Amino acid sequence: MSDETELADDSPNEEDVPEKTKEGASMGAKIGFVFSMVLTSIFLVASLVLVLFWVFMYRGGYAWQENPPKEFNWHPTLMVAGFIFFSGFSMLFYRMMTCCRKIYVKLLHTIFHAFAIACIAIGFLTVWDSHELVNPKIPNFYSLHSWLGLTTMGLFAIQFVVGFFSFLILLCCEGATAACRASLVPTHATFGLITFVMAAATAVTGLTEKALFELKGPLYSEWKSNEAIIINVLGVVIAAAAISITFTLSVPSIRKAPMRMTYHTDL
Amino acid sequence: MSDETELADDSPNEEDVPEKTKEGASMGAKIGFVFSMVLTSIFLVASLVLVLFWVFMYRGGYAWQENPPKEFNWHPTLMVAGFIFFSGFSMLFYRMMTCCRKIYVKLLHTIFHAFAIACIAIGFLTVWDSHELVNPKIPNFYSLHSWLGLTTMGLFAIQFVVGFFSFLILLCCEGATAACRASLVPTHATFGLITFVMAAATAVTGLTEKALFELKGPLYSEWKSNEAIIINVLGVVIAAAAISITFTLSVPSIRKAPMRMTYHTDL
Ligand code: HEM
Ligand code: HEM
Ligand code: HEM
Ligand code: HEM
Repeated sequence: MSDETELADDSPNEEDVPEKTKEGASMGAKIGFVFSMVLTSIFLVASLVLVLFWVFMYRGGYAWQENPPKEFNWHPTLMVAGFIFFSGFSMLFYRMMTCCRKIYVKLLHTIFHAFAIACIAIGFLTVWDSHELVNPKIPNFYSLHSWLGLTTMGLFAIQFVVGFFSFLILLCCEGATAACRASLVPTHATFGLITFVMAAATAVTGLTEKALFELKGPLYSEWKSNEAIIINVLGVVIAAAAISITFTLSVPSIRKAPMRMTYHTDL
Repeated sequence: MSDETELADDSPNEEDVPEKTKEGASMGAKIGFVFSMVLTSIFLVASLVLVLFWVFMYRGGYAWQENPPKEFNWHPTLMVAGFIFFSGFSMLFYRMMTCCRKIYVKLLHTIFHAFAIACIAIGFLTVWDSHELVNPKIPNFYSLHSWLGLTTMGLFAIQFVVGFFSFLILLCCEGATAACRASLVPTHATFGLITFVMAAATAVTGLTEKALFELKGPLYSEWKSNEAIIINVLGVVIAAAAISITFTLSVPSIRKAPMRMTYHTDL
């Protein structure tokens, strides 16, 4: 297997795994890896299901600009869909899809992050509307949650633009940019994970705010409303997704060289 | 340099760096590494300074059981001191102290985490007291913050016990346990980082709660009190510490082999 083939981005991955790797990943490691992958997927799906359940059962469903408080409900839903569900699965793809050509995985990674961007943009507009279209208006960007949210959205935007430019556009002159692209991968992976974890931290502060706004006094502190439990469980599931995805991505990929060094040879 | 010496845990590190490593880390990488180390330290110190400033300027300082609401003030202070300041610096030591014997670094790592445990235990007792010693009592463990807090404290306890047992106690029969100890390092490092990030996420939910409890209506949403800004800045600094420490620890150590594989040969 020549370096050329690997960098050419169109080799079926299964075939060019070096012998060393196949030995490298023991049976135990493989089972552990599949287990953590499945667990992460469960948390990602559960967070989306729970936020939908919460809004429909306790927050009265969705509306558009005619009803700003209900329009707000799009905000948590779309933020969880974008930052947790789509972005999370997109990050898992590189580890999950060991059967396809690398370029397909890369496109899927980009497409899922594009879905995420759409969700995030609309999710941001809906909370903005819900502050601007009421009387009296609610101020913007006053809370710690909104500051963390802006930071997270900024990180995500940089991550997408840099990723898009360096891993897709630079492909046009493949050979010349291979070394440069390879050197960017570890930083891209680290900041991708940081972005996910920041989104999870932002989401739990948002849930805390919403719980205290809506469930006054004993409704929250004595669980007079079951909604309190749903909100807490949603927050814990989002945190569990962050823990679990960090662990999953920290394990060296089983289909490539056994160590991080992989990044420098396999892009 | 024999493997023996390295595992013996008493070799001055500077001397047994393989030549390959010295070439491996370029000047640029070294500057970047020192920069991220300094930045992380600044965030860690700043979070402790800010929480003290906040409590003294806006929350009326500290008290003990005679004044539960002021006793509460120990809670954020000690949690930030333990989980962010002490634990954070302790995690940086392995990268920072390239001059000392490994066993000294290990002891310092343990001692700082022991300080952290003391802070965390008292920090937990003070919030418990502040709920139990008032009339009417405030319920315990109702909030998302408290659930995340319990999870984080649990992770921290496991991490400490497993770390203590496997890296210090098992030293008593050094040779026999070397391979076992080495294999635990990557998992220990990943879960150590996860614990730190979870603590940061817990802290920002705690700050959000406190802001909404104390700064009703326009005090927070229109910044009628400067306290709002202090709380937000504290939260952002804690988040910045988490981002920055994740990045710092993700860069391969400059004093050891250039890649993660280092963990399997250098314990
Ligand atoms: C995970 C990604 C999330 C991001 C990046 C994010 C971002 C933001 C931003 C930037 C604002 C300020 C909007 C403005 O002031 O005009 C905001 C407001 C708000 N968000 Fe989120 N949000 C997220 C998730 C959530 C979740 C899961 C909830 C749960 C209900 C939530 C609840 C709120 C609430 C109640 C507000 C209005 C109060 C305030 O400005 O703090 N957010 N969000
Ligand atoms: C905000 C959006 C993005 C985030 C959060 C993100 C996150 C990540 C993460 C966490 C990884 C590491 C996965 C692993 O360890 O297996 C990764 C890998 C990668 N991403 Fe992205 N990414 C984003 C956008 C993009 C875009 C637009 C591209 C363009 C094609 C791209 C290309 C890549 C490539 C080539 C890898 C390397 C996979 C490998 O060889 O291991 N990313 N990304
Ligand atoms: C970073 C680590 C932290 C951990 C592990 C933690 C843990 C906890 C736990 C377990 C409780 C429940 C105690 C009980 O119900 O008896 C609690 C309560 C509380 N904490 Fe924290 N805390 C942390 C940081 C903070 C910070 C920085 C603040 C900011 C002011 C804060 C504010 C509060 C408040 C207001 C309560 C009482 C309301 C409630 O039960 O949610 N915490 N914390
Ligand atoms: C809750 C407490 C603890 C936390 C959060 C923690 C966290 C960490 C982290 C994040 C690292 C990776 C540092 C790096 O990448 O350079 C690490 C390394 C390490 N820790 Fe801990 N640790 C804890 C307790 C302990 C204890 C009690 C011991 C016993 C001596 C210990 C022994 C070690 C060793 C031997 C390493 C490996 C350093 C290396 O060879 O790179 N840890 N710890």
